[in-house]
Amino acid sequence: MSDSPAGVGDLLGVLAYAELTAFLRLAEDATRHAPSLADRAALGDLAATEYAHFRLLHDRLASLGIDPEEAMAPFVGPLDDWHTQTTPGDWLEALVKAYVGTGIALDFYREAAVHVDAETRRLVEEVLVDEGRSQFAVERVGAALKEDPTQSGRLALWARRMVGEALSQGQHVAAARPELAKLLVEAAGEDITRMFARLTEAHGERMAAMGLTPGP
Amino acid sequence: MSDSPAGVGDLLGVLAYAELTAFLRLAEDATRHAPSLADRAALGDLAATEYAHFRLLHDRLASLGIDPEEAMAPFVGPLDDWHTQTTPGDWLEALVKAYVGTGIALDFYREAAVHVDAETRRLVEEVLVDEGRSQFAVERVGAALKEDPTQSGRLALWARRMVGEALSQGQHVAAARPELAKLLVEAAGEDITRMFARLTEAHGERMAAMGLTPGP
Repeated sequence: MSDSPAGVGDLLGVLAYAELTAFLRLAEDATRHAPSLADRAALGDLAATEYAHFRLLHDRLASLGIDPEEAMAPFVGPLDDWHTQTTPGDWLEALVKAYVGTGIALDFYREAAVHVDAETRRLVEEVLVDEGRSQFAVERVGAALKEDPTQSGRLALWARRMVGEALSQGQHVAAARPELAKLLVEAAGEDITRMFARLTEAHGERMAAMGLTPGP
Repeated sequence: MSDSPAGVGDLLGVLAYAELTAFLRLAEDATRHAPSLADRAALGDLAATEYAHFRLLHDRLASLGIDPEEAMAPFVGPLDDWHTQTTPGDWLEALVKAYVGTGIALDFYREAAVHVDAETRRLVEEVLVDEGRSQFAVERVGAALKEDPTQSGRLALWARRMVGEALSQGQHVAAARPELAKLLVEAAGEDITRMFARLTEAHGERMAAMGLTPGP
């Protein structure tokens, strides 16, 4: 059951739309908020990587005989809502989003990829390899906090809001797409609590890397 | 004089920032206006190509020992102003901009590239090769006009506005960067009038390709 077409189509579909929309939103954030050309190019670089991932996933769907637009369609609403709820108001918020938002997404893909077929897993792992690319965001947020530690509180809140909104949208998706939810649950085995613990821990590590307290 | 570092740095600088900002703006237009996922992906594809060009130009500047950010800086104001003045209000305007705006830019690069050194010219030509990528915009605008010919007037006006704003910003750039203006004038030889005739003719052909009257 774990490599059922429905589950795999959903997994690749949500991944593909997540990458497409991350690409477009990062580009928008770069235009609006980057304080320098170098910063704009750096966030643009991240955006372009997301686009390359989108193409890989799109083509994989097509090669499986799954219509990419149909596979992405169920996830447009939740992912667009997530982005609307987490539209950055300034450059630091944009950086935290680029790092934390991408991190949450990557953790989710990693959990979901455990039980799919080998070829799909190989592809998901390829998409996951570039994780280090958002490292520049960590460095810039860290430097900004060193200069002005009072920013820490609001950025920690901002990051928490992103996680909260992700959980909220994730529940909508799980309710609407039981096949996808099953992939995750099967991946976690009996111990779904442990999976959430892993996700929370990874989020805490990212917060610490930026010099932010993860909060309760 | 024609391959003076100042002129070449300016040419690569304006090209690089034009590609970077085209990438970011196309991505924004795709997010805001694309009526379907396939359309969003198609405009995203165009945006990603602009980014790849930006990287080529950026790296060429660096390899010439020219700071890419410094080379781009003089053109940020005029190009940002052009985009602000030509922010599309809907999907058809976004498509016309993608095709006409890219076309104007490509014509300009072609004229300017004639008198630079061989290595830079090879690079500019590589960037020019992908022109056909905006062909999907032609097809979709043509189809929309077949369905509703009354759109033709406002889209023709919209395209004319883009040309007008381009000329206006081009004059600012030429006044501020005489080395770059000289490249263009030298490329045109004595006959700058003929160069403008070529640009106007190319614009007319693009308008006709979309089923729009170029206007007076």
